[in-house]
Amino acid sequence: MNASNPAAARRCLVVVLAAGEGKRMQSHKPKVLHALAGRSLLAHVLHAVSAAGADAVSVVVGPGRDDVAAEARRVRPDATVYVQAERLGTAHAVLAAREEIARGYDDVIVAFADTPLVTAETFCRLRAELARGATVAVLGFEASDPNGYGRLIVESDDLLAIREHKDATEEERRIPLCNAGLMALAGSEALALLEAIGQDNAQREFYLTDAVAVARARGLTTHVVVADEAEVQGINDRVQLAQAEATLQSRLRLAAMREGATLQAPETVFLSADTRLGRDVVVEPHVVFGPGVTVEDGAVIHSFSHLEGARIRAGASVGPYARLRPGADIGEGARVGNFVEIKNATLGAGAKANHLSYLGDATIGAKVNIGAGTITCNYDGFRKHRTEIGAGAFVGSNSSLVAPVVIGEGAFIGSGSVVTMDVPADALAVGRARQVTKDGWAQKFRETFSDASTKKSE
Amino acid sequence: MNASNPAAARRCLVVVLAAGEGKRMQSHKPKVLHALAGRSLLAHVLHAVSAAGADAVSVVVGPGRDDVAAEARRVRPDATVYVQAERLGTAHAVLAAREEIARGYDDVIVAFADTPLVTAETFCRLRAELARGATVAVLGFEASDPNGYGRLIVESDDLLAIREHKDATEEERRIPLCNAGLMALAGSEALALLEAIGQDNAQREFYLTDAVAVARARGLTTHVVVADEAEVQGINDRVQLAQAEATLQSRLRLAAMREGATLQAPETVFLSADTRLGRDVVVEPHVVFGPGVTVEDGAVIHSFSHLEGARIRAGASVGPYARLRPGADIGEGARVGNFVEIKNATLGAGAKANHLSYLGDATIGAKVNIGAGTITCNYDGFRKHRTEIGAGAFVGSNSSLVAPVVIGEGAFIGSGSVVTMDVPADALAVGRARQVTKDGWAQKFRETFSDASTKKSE
Amino acid sequence: MNASNPAAARRCLVVVLAAGEGKRMQSHKPKVLHALAGRSLLAHVLHAVSAAGADAVSVVVGPGRDDVAAEARRVRPDATVYVQAERLGTAHAVLAAREEIARGYDDVIVAFADTPLVTAETFCRLRAELARGATVAVLGFEASDPNGYGRLIVESDDLLAIREHKDATEEERRIPLCNAGLMALAGSEALALLEAIGQDNAQREFYLTDAVAVARARGLTTHVVVADEAEVQGINDRVQLAQAEATLQSRLRLAAMREGATLQAPETVFLSADTRLGRDVVVEPHVVFGPGVTVEDGAVIHSFSHLEGARIRAGASVGPYARLRPGADIGEGARVGNFVEIKNATLGAGAKANHLSYLGDATIGAKVNIGAGTITCNYDGFRKHRTEIGAGAFVGSNSSLVAPVVIGEGAFIGSGSVVTMDVPADALAVGRARQVTKDGWAQKFRETFSDASTKKSE
Repeated sequence: MNASNPAAARRCLVVVLAAGEGKRMQSHKPKVLHALAGRSLLAHVLHAVSAAGADAVSVVVGPGRDDVAAEARRVRPDATVYVQAERLGTAHAVLAAREEIARGYDDVIVAFADTPLVTAETFCRLRAELARGATVAVLGFEASDPNGYGRLIVESDDLLAIREHKDATEEERRIPLCNAGLMALAGSEALALLEAIGQDNAQREFYLTDAVAVARARGLTTHVVVADEAEVQGINDRVQLAQAEATLQSRLRLAAMREGATLQAPETVFLSADTRLGRDVVVEPHVVFGPGVTVEDGAVIHSFSHLEGARIRAGASVGPYARLRPGADIGEGARVGNFVEIKNATLGAGAKANHLSYLGDATIGAKVNIGAGTITCNYDGFRKHRTEIGAGAFVGSNSSLVAPVVIGEGAFIGSGSVVTMDVPADALAVGRARQVTKDGWAQKFRETFSDASTKKSE
Repeated sequence: MNASNPAAARRCLVVVLAAGEGKRMQSHKPKVLHALAGRSLLAHVLHAVSAAGADAVSVVVGPGRDDVAAEARRVRPDATVYVQAERLGTAHAVLAAREEIARGYDDVIVAFADTPLVTAETFCRLRAELARGATVAVLGFEASDPNGYGRLIVESDDLLAIREHKDATEEERRIPLCNAGLMALAGSEALALLEAIGQDNAQREFYLTDAVAVARARGLTTHVVVADEAEVQGINDRVQLAQAEATLQSRLRLAAMREGATLQAPETVFLSADTRLGRDVVVEPHVVFGPGVTVEDGAVIHSFSHLEGARIRAGASVGPYARLRPGADIGEGARVGNFVEIKNATLGAGAKANHLSYLGDATIGAKVNIGAGTITCNYDGFRKHRTEIGAGAFVGSNSSLVAPVVIGEGAFIGSGSVVTMDVPADALAVGRARQVTKDGWAQKFRETFSDASTKKSE
Repeated sequence: MNASNPAAARRCLVVVLAAGEGKRMQSHKPKVLHALAGRSLLAHVLHAVSAAGADAVSVVVGPGRDDVAAEARRVRPDATVYVQAERLGTAHAVLAAREEIARGYDDVIVAFADTPLVTAETFCRLRAELARGATVAVLGFEASDPNGYGRLIVESDDLLAIREHKDATEEERRIPLCNAGLMALAGSEALALLEAIGQDNAQREFYLTDAVAVARARGLTTHVVVADEAEVQGINDRVQLAQAEATLQSRLRLAAMREGATLQAPETVFLSADTRLGRDVVVEPHVVFGPGVTVEDGAVIHSFSHLEGARIRAGASVGPYARLRPGADIGEGARVGNFVEIKNATLGAGAKANHLSYLGDATIGAKVNIGAGTITCNYDGFRKHRTEIGAGAFVGSNSSLVAPVVIGEGAFIGSGSVVTMDVPADALAVGRARQVTKDGWAQKFRETFSDASTKKSE
C-alpha cells in the first residue's frame, strides 16, 4: 500500500482501540485477533495507518491481553501498548494513551481495531482535513439503513453536530449520513478536548463522539470525511466477519485484475492481503492464496491449488491440486502438477513434478524430472534432512529418497527404488526386488473364495 | 431442530403429499427423492414435522412408488403410507389417508414433500392457530411476483377467501399475499371439510384450497400464517432444486456462524443438514461436509477438504485436501494433511498423517507418525482386513502395510517397506531391496536417444 | 448450437472485427485470444455466426497478428483473413474485407470479436430483419446506465437515427435503448453504404454507425433488434472478462440443469462451452470441466474433480478429487476415486481406481481393481510406453507398473511390487523384498535422541 499522503510533513500518532471484548464472536480468541485474508483485524488497521504515514502507533488493549499486545508489536514493532483497566467508553479508552498523545503530534487519529477495512487513503483524507485547518475530522458514511446510527448534521463543509438516533427529530432521522466512529484530532487540541468530555448519559460512559460538541462549543472547526458503508463496517460477530472477508476479497480481486492478472472466476479465488500476481498470470477457478505468495509474469495457477509462502517464477505452471507450502520456490517454466506438495524446496527452471509427490526440504535442479509418487523421506521422527537432486536428473516413479541424500546431475533412479545412498552424476541407481511370477496362483486364490459370501466391493 | 411447540398437548397428524410425478425434473428418480444438503426432499419435510411434534405421519405416494415409501419409513419408521391411485387433485390425495385422519387427531396438517424448506417453527405456528380456535389455518407468503398465485383475501386475522389468479379482480391482483398450499385443519372437522370439497372446476379435480370456502360457508374460523417466500418455494425442476439448495445452505451457514464457527468464505462451504460444528472451529474456503460430520471445538478444516460420516475431535487439523470417509475418527490435536484419505479408521490423539496416504480399516494409536505415501493394503480382492498401529510408532514414507497386520507401540518402519508380518513393539521393520548403483549408465542411456526425435515432454 | 435460421435460403457473410489492440487488458496476448469457458473470444463469435448459418466469414486483424489469424482458421478453416493496416475506425475496418463483401452476399453482418456473448439466435434475428426488407438492422439493448452510449431513436419498427451521447438532447438522453455496435447490411447495398461513410468527426475516423444515417438519407429501411444488455457486453479489461465469464457460466449451467443434470451448487461448477452432461448426471459442488468432456446418463461427478477431454460413461462415479485428462475414457459403472489422475487411458466397465493413482497411456479391462498408490511408469525420460491390464486383474496397492508391460486377465499383483515383466493371465506377480525385523532397534534409536533438543514436528 502506497497511499499518497497529503500531510507528510505533519507528525502523526494513531491510537488504535483494541480493548473490546467481542462477546458476540462466541470465541475464546479476542475479536481483533480473528483474521481476514490471512491477517488479523488488528494487523489490517496497523498496515493501513502505517501506509497513511503514522509516525507512532499506540494500541489500547483490555487487561491481560498480552496476545493482542504481541500481535501489535509483531506488525508494528515500535507500537506502544496501553491497557484500559475499566470499560468507561471510547474517550476513556483513548485517554489510556494519554502519555503518548501528550508527546505532541500534529495529527492524532483514533482508529478501531474491529473496523479493519478502512483504507490508507481514507486515513489520509482525515489527516488532510486537519492540514486544511479542522480541529476535528469525523469519518461518516451514507447508511443503507441509518436506523440506530448517530446522524451527522452538516452545513457545507462543517459538521455541526452528531445526533444520536434516540435523540434525533423525525427530520434528522431522514439524514442518511451517519457517524462511523473514526476521528482525527488536531494534536494541539486533542488532550484538552478529550479531557473535557463528560459522562452525562445513561451509561455513565465517556464517548469520543462528544469531542465534536466540545470542539463546537469552543468555536473550533469540525469537518466530515465520507467513506463507503462497506469500508467502515465494524465486526461484532462471525457473520459480519464473513461479510468483511467478502468485501476485502472483492477489493483484492479487482486490484489483481486491474494490474493484469486473469481471474477466471474471481468469486472462487481467495487472496491474502499480500498476494502479488504478475502480468498475464492466469488463475483458474477455486484457488486459495495464503500469506506470502508471489506469482511472476505469465505463470498459470490451475484450479484447486493452495499456495502459501511460495514464489512461482515466470511462466511456471502450478496445479491443479498443487499445494505449495512456505519456502516453495518454483523455477521459471517449471511445472508442479496434481496432488503434489512442495515445502521448503526449490524446483529449478524447467523442472517437473507432475503427479502425486511430496518434495520437502529439497534442492532440485533445472530440468529434473520427478516421477509420479516420488517422496522425499525428510523426517526420521526427530530431525529433518535435505535432499539434493542435480540438474537434469530423472527420478523414476514411486521412488523414496531417504534424506540426507544427494543425487548427482543427470543421474537416473529406477522406478520404485528406495534411495538411501548418494548417487553419482550420470549414474543409475536401482533399489528394488526382482519380480517373481507364479503361474495360476491368482486363479487358485479366487477359487478359494468362489463360494464365499464376502465378495464385497469397497 | 428443537422448535418450541405451543400446542404440545394436542395430538397431531401430518399428511405429507408425495405423489407428484415431477416430470419437469427430467429424471428417472421420483422428485421427492432428489436431495438437498445430503437429505431427500421428503426427509426434510419429515424431519421438520417431527420437530414440530407430529405424533403420526401419513405419506401419500403414487402407484408403485415403493422407493418413496421406503424413504418415508427410513426417516420415520412409524409412518403410514397410502397410495393415491388416480390423480384427482390435492384434496383427493389427502383423502387417500382417510383411514388415518379418521383415527381422531386434534391437528391435521397437510404438507408437501416437494416444499422442503418449511421450518418446524412454521408448522408450529400453523398448529398454534388451531389451538387459538381456527378450524383452518393456511400458510401464506408475500410474493415478489404474485402473478399466477391464488391471493389470500384477509380481514385482520381472518382469511375470507382464496382467490385464484384467473378469477381475481384487478384490485385483488394487487394483493401480494399468496397461498403457499400448506394447511392445518382442526382434526374434529378435517374429514367433513375434505369430503365436502367438490370438483366443480375446469380440471374436474378436488382442490385442497377449497377447504377454506367450505369452512367459511359453515361459519367456521379460517386464519393465515405468513412465511418467507424462500421458505415456501416448491421444487418443480432442477433450477428450483439448486435455488432451494442455496437457500438451505445460507440458513445452515448462518446458524453455524452464530453458534461460534468461523466460515471464512461461507458461500464456498457446503454443509449437510446434520453437520455439527463446535465453537472456534475454523472452516477455510472450499470445504464440503457430507452427512454425519461432527467437528469439535477449535478444530480447523482447511480448504478443499471433503468430510462424510466423520468425527473430528477438539483441536485437530484437517486438510487441505483431506478426504474423511464414514467411520473416520480423528483424535484430539491430530493432523490429517494433504491428499490423505481416511475411511473406517481411528487416528489417536496427536497422531499425524500429513501427506498422500490411504488409511482404511485401521486403528492408529496416539502420536503415531504416518509417513508420506503410506498405504494400508486392506483389500485382497475379496475381504477387508484391519491394520493396527500402536501408540508412538513411526511409519516411514511410502510404506505398504499389508493387512491384517499389527505394528507394536513405538515400532519403526523403514521408508519404502512392504510390511506383511506383525512388528513387535519398539522393533524396526524394513522390507526393501538394497540399492545398486551403476556408474555412467544414465549417460549412455541418454546417448541412445541423443539423435532421436522423440524428446517430448509429457 | 442449432439456432433456427429464418433466412436459410439467403447467402450470408460475417465480417468479424478483431483488430483492436486491447491495451486495457494489460496483456502480452491479443485481447480476442483471451478465453471464456475454455474458448477464445474470437472462437465464441465464430461458433455463434456459424450456428447462425454464415456461409463465409472474414476476420479483420491488426498488422502482424498471425496468432489471431491462426485462431480464426483453426475454428473456421474457410475463414478469409484481412489486415487493417491503419486504425481509421470501424467502417474502415470492415472495408478491409471489401474483396469478400464484393463477392455478392444476401446478408452482410458485422460482428465484433470482443463481444463474444451474442448468441446465434440474435444473429438470426438480425438476418431476419434483412429478409423482411430492411437494408440495415442494428443491434440495440436497454442500458441500465445509458450514459456514454449512442441512443437509438426509433418509431415503431423504424430506426430513425443513432444519436451519440455528446450530441443528444436532454430528452434523447433519457432514452434507454442504446447501440450495441453490431449491424446487418443487405448485401446488395453494403459496399455502397460503407464507402459513403465519411470521417467528418473529431477523431477523423470512419464510423460504422454512420451507415444508418447514410441509409436513411437514401430512403432505405433501417430496423432495430433488441438484445439483453449482458449479451452485448464488450470486453475491454480483465474485470469485464470475468463478468462475461460469469454471464456465460450462468447460461451454460441453466442449460445443463434444464436438460436434466443436477448441479447441486451451480455457482461453483465451471463448464466449458462444449461440455455435455446427460440425464440424471449429478455434479457436486466445486467441479471444473475443461474442454471436450462428455458425461453420460446417471454418472456422478463428485466434488473437487477436474475433467478435460474425457468421456465418462453411464453410471460411472468420478471423484472427489479425480483429475481426468485428455483421452480418459471411464467405462460404464466404473469408479475413479480420490487423488487419481487418468490420462490417455481407458478404464473398462466396472473397473475401480479408487485412491492415489496415476494411470497414463494405459488400457485397463473391465472389473480390474487398481489398488491405492498404483502408478503406471509410462515415461523413461524420452519415450512414452503403454500399460495393458486384462479384465478382472487385481493390482495390489503401491505397485509400480513399468511400461511397456502387459498384465494378463485375472492376474494378481502383490502390494508394493515393481512390475517390469509381463504377467500371464491368472498368474501372481510379486516384486518386493522380504521384511526384516530387528527387535528393540526403535527403542535404541529414540534413546539416541532422548536428550536432543531437535524434537520438532514437521
